[in-house]
Amino acid sequence: MSTAHEIALKARAAGNILKTVDNANRSEILRKIHDALKEKASIIEEANKKDLTVAKETGLVDSLLKRLDLFKDDKFDVMLRGILDVAKLEDPVGKVKMARELDEDLTLYQITAPVGVLLVIFESRPEVVANITSLCIKSGNAGILKGGKESVNTFRAMAAVINSTIEQNVATTGIPMGAVQLVETREDIADLLKEDELIDLVVPRGSNALVRNIKNTTKIPVLGHADGICSVYIDEFADLTKAKRIAFDAKTNYPAGCNAMETLLINPKAASWWEILENLSRNGDVVVHVTKDVKEAYISKLEELGKLDDVLKSKIADAKENEDFDKEFLSLDCAVKFVASTQEAIQHINLHSSKHTECIVTENNENAEKFLKGIDSSGVYWNASTRFADGFRYGFGTEVGISTSKIHARGPVGLDGLVTYQYQIRGNGNIAADYLGAGGEKAFIHKNLDIKNIKL
Amino acid sequence: MSTAHEIALKARAAGNILKTVDNANRSEILRKIHDALKEKASIIEEANKKDLTVAKETGLVDSLLKRLDLFKDDKFDVMLRGILDVAKLEDPVGKVKMARELDEDLTLYQITAPVGVLLVIFESRPEVVANITSLCIKSGNAGILKGGKESVNTFRAMAAVINSTIEQNVATTGIPMGAVQLVETREDIADLLKEDELIDLVVPRGSNALVRNIKNTTKIPVLGHADGICSVYIDEFADLTKAKRIAFDAKTNYPAGCNAMETLLINPKAASWWEILENLSRNGDVVVHVTKDVKEAYISKLEELGKLDDVLKSKIADAKENEDFDKEFLSLDCAVKFVASTQEAIQHINLHSSKHTECIVTENNENAEKFLKGIDSSGVYWNASTRFADGFRYGFGTEVGISTSKIHARGPVGLDGLVTYQYQIRGNGNIAADYLGAGGEKAFIHKNLDIKNIKL
Repeated sequence: MSTAHEIALKARAAGNILKTVDNANRSEILRKIHDALKEKASIIEEANKKDLTVAKETGLVDSLLKRLDLFKDDKFDVMLRGILDVAKLEDPVGKVKMARELDEDLTLYQITAPVGVLLVIFESRPEVVANITSLCIKSGNAGILKGGKESVNTFRAMAAVINSTIEQNVATTGIPMGAVQLVETREDIADLLKEDELIDLVVPRGSNALVRNIKNTTKIPVLGHADGICSVYIDEFADLTKAKRIAFDAKTNYPAGCNAMETLLINPKAASWWEILENLSRNGDVVVHVTKDVKEAYISKLEELGKLDDVLKSKIADAKENEDFDKEFLSLDCAVKFVASTQEAIQHINLHSSKHTECIVTENNENAEKFLKGIDSSGVYWNASTRFADGFRYGFGTEVGISTSKIHARGPVGLDGLVTYQYQIRGNGNIAADYLGAGGEKAFIHKNLDIKNIKL
Repeated sequence: MSTAHEIALKARAAGNILKTVDNANRSEILRKIHDALKEKASIIEEANKKDLTVAKETGLVDSLLKRLDLFKDDKFDVMLRGILDVAKLEDPVGKVKMARELDEDLTLYQITAPVGVLLVIFESRPEVVANITSLCIKSGNAGILKGGKESVNTFRAMAAVINSTIEQNVATTGIPMGAVQLVETREDIADLLKEDELIDLVVPRGSNALVRNIKNTTKIPVLGHADGICSVYIDEFADLTKAKRIAFDAKTNYPAGCNAMETLLINPKAASWWEILENLSRNGDVVVHVTKDVKEAYISKLEELGKLDDVLKSKIADAKENEDFDKEFLSLDCAVKFVASTQEAIQHINLHSSKHTECIVTENNENAEKFLKGIDSSGVYWNASTRFADGFRYGFGTEVGISTSKIHARGPVGLDGLVTYQYQIRGNGNIAADYLGAGGEKAFIHKNLDIKNIKL
């Protein structure tokens, strides 16, 4: 068994080579991995059955068993197709983002480059192995992959296929061994998280608890989100139909999603605002956790309209003021509060949200622009459901994850989140001492070049 | 006295407002701060003299005294001019970087936004207060500033002027109090470094020891570099004149700079390579710390040519193999080693460098491209001195610092390093459930719009 340090060193060395392999070869190895996994499907299925048997014996809950089952419905085929889809994506590496003439024979380029070594930690879903392998290789990064212990046999079988494919094609594609390494034990992860000199980015894909735990135990930057506390603000000038639709979609379309609405802020001047709550509860089974003033106003309005029946009554709960507005329910529950203005909504959100995605529903341009400018989260929406915060919906081709960090990559992250940049200078023996500021007389030209015309 | 948490909370609140202030007002307050500092020059000078007196009494060394003296030569005027220069820079906030039609009435924008709250820690140079204040306000970030204790009186005087200027103009410019806060004690810093929920980025400007210490004690991302171990590789196909000039400039133009050459890698097949070392020592006073094989080859060549005099002899030292190639000399010293190929040079650099800036000297395109692609540092140069790694030389207008991180901001960092981005969606009541993948039938358009035509 290799130590964590050896694994990290091997990944670093592989990453340094992978960085130099061109897109044609990076994509070619993905197609070969696709073919090999397809060919060895029966071996993988057998390993997967072994995992399922063990899981059933240990009493794993049904929802986890479903995740673990790689051959349920068309899951395996979707996984295979995903590899080819990533292979077809535009090369994220080597894109010229800026070019500037510093002098006639001295040019500066800003060029995208792989981050280096990624540590990807995920839980039970075995298809993630293929997904992460594709993303890593396509973006020129070496990957260290750690899956859940429930799917260890499936992982091993898939890793064996992937690694032997890489091995057989080292000479033709240049993709080095060590480009993808599988790690099995929990101890390894604790040690790997200490390798901040060799590992550049940790990508946890799993529960919030997993992400929070990793963020707290490593100095390596983490790409991920521990919480998704998204808010919808119903402005004084909201269109009621839009408000009802958006709140309903944001809460009920997929309540377990990190982009689901958890907090509903209502300006009490909004016309017929109570219908939004009624619609959520009656048609969406949503329990509204309301503050005292919302409760009083809501109930008196329902009574006035003769609508306060047992169904609605059973869906009204008291909000815990110090808790429910910092809570990710991940269920058909939602905290509801009055705010007196757009400014108050912004203040509430900037204080309580997890910097994921927030929405204002309004027909008033001024309030909308104030909201779009004032909110500090990665996604700020005007009249659209928070559920749009998703790599596929954004058109990223693939999604690496959703980030609530404020730097590097924010919100839904595509392949771009796995690259960084480098500055290249191409000169002709130029030295700083010839130029102003370092002892010389020459001035810099600093003329931006049109990057469309740059071929490096 | 406010606690660290109170300071951080105040900064966060100020950042949230500052984020919404337009460029005209952000620039206007900088001009007003410029005027006020100019007007109060005599008060600041008096405070600075107090610091200098104390410093002399405590026996501060001359070089630090020089740094502390804000009125030495034209330093104060240069500082004032710097404020106006930053005010004049292009607005880094609110730039549309991407626009994509998701559907006819649903558009996604990627827009630059301030990072939020910056904690800037620096040592004795008092003019940094004005510099950092300008950078923070211009980029829409709230700043918490901590200076060295030697310049506390100067800081206080300048902070008083800056804060009263902000206070007097809150109503007209919208720049909030708390946009810039000064922190005085060491204890505060330790506590502030724990506020990772409120502070978004730490920018240390000072010694490597300071940066290393901060990186080791905080979970907040750090923009900075602890080491600058830059290498120059003299390829087999190097032009000797260029090689001599570049090595000489990279080492001697400013040896204390983080972009100075610390390691010289030589391919022994390079024509007359010994002249590079001879030139460094004879004309640049550089001590070459050479490995055993380099020493033998160098001395025998010098003897053969009858050039081995006492001057050169005194400039040859034995390299400590396990130390000198991971060392930032910051002096007229340089570690020298043979490498057999470009590939070996790349491997050495990727293992030993601090990911700052590296250069290949060669006339061979293939080797150059291999080097440019294979090196993992923020700067990769072909036939140009590492000394060009600098925000002003890159044409960034101003330099926030130089980063050796691999994500967010790499290499010389301009105002762009103080902004991140947000995704805006402008819709018309759109909900995810109407679209494919979330239960509906509508397909996304995903049509990129020309950002030149976008006005938000």
